[in-house]
Amino acid sequence: MTITGFALDPRLAADTRPVARWGLSDVLLMNDARFPWVILVPRIAGVTEWFDLAEGERATLLNETLALGKAMQTLFNAEKINTAALGNVVSQLHVHVVARYARDAAWPAPTWGFGQAEPYESEALINTLDRLSRELPSL
Amino acid sequence: MTITGFALDPRLAADTRPVARWGLSDVLLMNDARFPWVILVPRIAGVTEWFDLAEGERATLLNETLALGKAMQTLFNAEKINTAALGNVVSQLHVHVVARYARDAAWPAPTWGFGQAEPYESEALINTLDRLSRELPSL
Repeated sequence: MTITGFALDPRLAADTRPVARWGLSDVLLMNDARFPWVILVPRIAGVTEWFDLAEGERATLLNETLALGKAMQTLFNAEKINTAALGNVVSQLHVHVVARYARDAAWPAPTWGFGQAEPYESEALINTLDRLSRELPSL
Repeated sequence: MTITGFALDPRLAADTRPVARWGLSDVLLMNDARFPWVILVPRIAGVTEWFDLAEGERATLLNETLALGKAMQTLFNAEKINTAALGNVVSQLHVHVVARYARDAAWPAPTWGFGQAEPYESEALINTLDRLSRELPSL
C-alpha cells in the first residue's frame, strides 16, 4: 500500500461508466452491451491482490461484492453470477461481477478476453446506468 | 440449501485431486500441469452462489480463499493470483485460485476454457500434492 492517493486506472476509466460510490469501492458499469457487467474498484492506492487489503477492507469488499451479485441476479434475472478478481491486464485491484445466461454470446466460457466489447448505444447506456443507480442498494 | 448431504460434483471430482480438508472447504488440485490451480469447494449441499451461503460461511470462504491465494503466491512465486467463482459448467459452488505468470500459456487471458487440460505426470502429481500438503496453512 502506498501513501499516495487513489486514482482509478486509466484503462478501467476508459472501459467503464460510473454508477455509484459505495463505502469502499467505486461501482462502475463495463461499457459492453453484450453482458450485464459491473466492476468494483476499492479506493485504496497501490493494491493488486485482495489479500493485501487490511482485514476490515477485505470483509467490506466481500460484502460489497456479494450485495452487487445478489442485486444483479435479481435485476437482470441472471442464470449465474460470475465473480472474479483477475488483474492480468489491469493490476489495480478490481472485482468483476457479471450476469450470465446460457444464451449469452460467451457461455459457458468466461467474458474476459472474449471477442470485442460492444459499447452501449447512448440511450441504452443512459437507461442501464439509471436502472442500476435506482435499483442497486446503497452501501 | 437442502437438508441432503454434501457430495462433491462428479466433474469436479474427475478434474481434481484432494489436497486438504479445511474447516469449510475441501482443497483440491486441478489436474492440469499448465497452471498451479487449486479450487475450494465448501461442503454445503445445494449452493451455487457465494451470496447464498449463511453469513458466517461467506466470511469463512473468503478467509480460506485469501489464505490459499497468499500461500500460492509465495509457494509458486506467482506474478498474479486469479480468483473466481464462475459455475457456468459446474454449478456447485467452488472458488478457483490460479497462480499466473506473464510467461504462462494463457496469459493474459483467463485459464477457464483455455485449450485442453494437460494432466500431471504421475511423479509431478505426487510432488505437487505433497508440496501443497506441507506448505499450505491448516485452516
